[in-house]
Amino acid sequence: MSAIDDLVNELARLPTIGRKSALRLTYHLLKQPPEQSKRLAEALGTLTDRIRSCERCFNLTEDPLCAVCSDTRRDASVVCVVEEASDITAVERTGEFRGVYHVLRGRLSPLDGVGPDDLTVAALVARVVAGGVKEVIVATNPKLEGEATALYVQEQVAPLGVIVSRIARGMPVGGDLEYADGVTIAQSISARREM
Amino acid sequence: MSAIDDLVNELARLPTIGRKSALRLTYHLLKQPPEQSKRLAEALGTLTDRIRSCERCFNLTEDPLCAVCSDTRRDASVVCVVEEASDITAVERTGEFRGVYHVLRGRLSPLDGVGPDDLTVAALVARVVAGGVKEVIVATNPKLEGEATALYVQEQVAPLGVIVSRIARGMPVGGDLEYADGVTIAQSISARREM
Repeated sequence: MSAIDDLVNELARLPTIGRKSALRLTYHLLKQPPEQSKRLAEALGTLTDRIRSCERCFNLTEDPLCAVCSDTRRDASVVCVVEEASDITAVERTGEFRGVYHVLRGRLSPLDGVGPDDLTVAALVARVVAGGVKEVIVATNPKLEGEATALYVQEQVAPLGVIVSRIARGMPVGGDLEYADGVTIAQSISARREM
Repeated sequence: MSAIDDLVNELARLPTIGRKSALRLTYHLLKQPPEQSKRLAEALGTLTDRIRSCERCFNLTEDPLCAVCSDTRRDASVVCVVEEASDITAVERTGEFRGVYHVLRGRLSPLDGVGPDDLTVAALVARVVAGGVKEVIVATNPKLEGEATALYVQEQVAPLGVIVSRIARGMPVGGDLEYADGVTIAQSISARREM
């Protein structure tokens, strides 16, 4: 039954989904009305066509500028620097941050061959040089690689005369922004300290 | 970002996938080449178009008869009765069973409003009446509802003069065929006893 095998193989490629889970999901979908698989197929099919990077902050968006950058009520003088676009979702959930973002698209990781040129730090420097930015909050994950990345961002941005701060260690060290609860993230932003 | 929300909503409908997992899977797909989402969309989109029920045993198939029913090397005189088509996959994995199947499409469950008419027992009776069947192995799950279903199948089929047997309790009671290992399933088939 190759239609089933096709779907099981594709589902099993996803993280945290093994072959048994993929088989269960497939049988589940076969018991639902066909519209459910179709809607999921449609959402998947259009995903990568519709989503691109924000020209300013590299957040994910369907327009040239993302929802945060194009919102004039946001305070563009405070830039929160995160590793991935998914971290923005985590910070936005807290409802506590009124500034804007900059997505690095990764973290320094010499072992994985990720160096400074693979991140969007140059674009961040260009944003600061262009003016209007008073503070850069470095919200990379409090892990070894995130800390190294934070230091690198500080070295590049601090000489430009803006305040560079680091989120407080309200978060458990070794944790992931993406998994933290909103209160913890909010605390770590409000208790940020200058680097 | 409605393209992301669309996919997260659809993924979160699936069993064992919550909103956080759905979000992680979506961001994962956005980091992969677009072809991966497209292939998954294609597999999902064609799934319900291509898959239907076997006319004889109600297994899932892309043809009028399923792979087991159309295989002339299978012993059509021994019919293994299972609750769901996914249980066939579990039994086939053992490589020990050379007969054919009959999928009940569920189990008796008065609390969920599932009665005898919601199962395919009448079609099983018709298969036995049509002749050629010597033994019916009832391989419903060894849980309360599966046992009740097994008794009902026995009541309907035994008067027709065929042997009705029940898989042995080699499996842990309360377990699921779908999760059992092949050796356990094989033992429970070879140690089956007449009902």
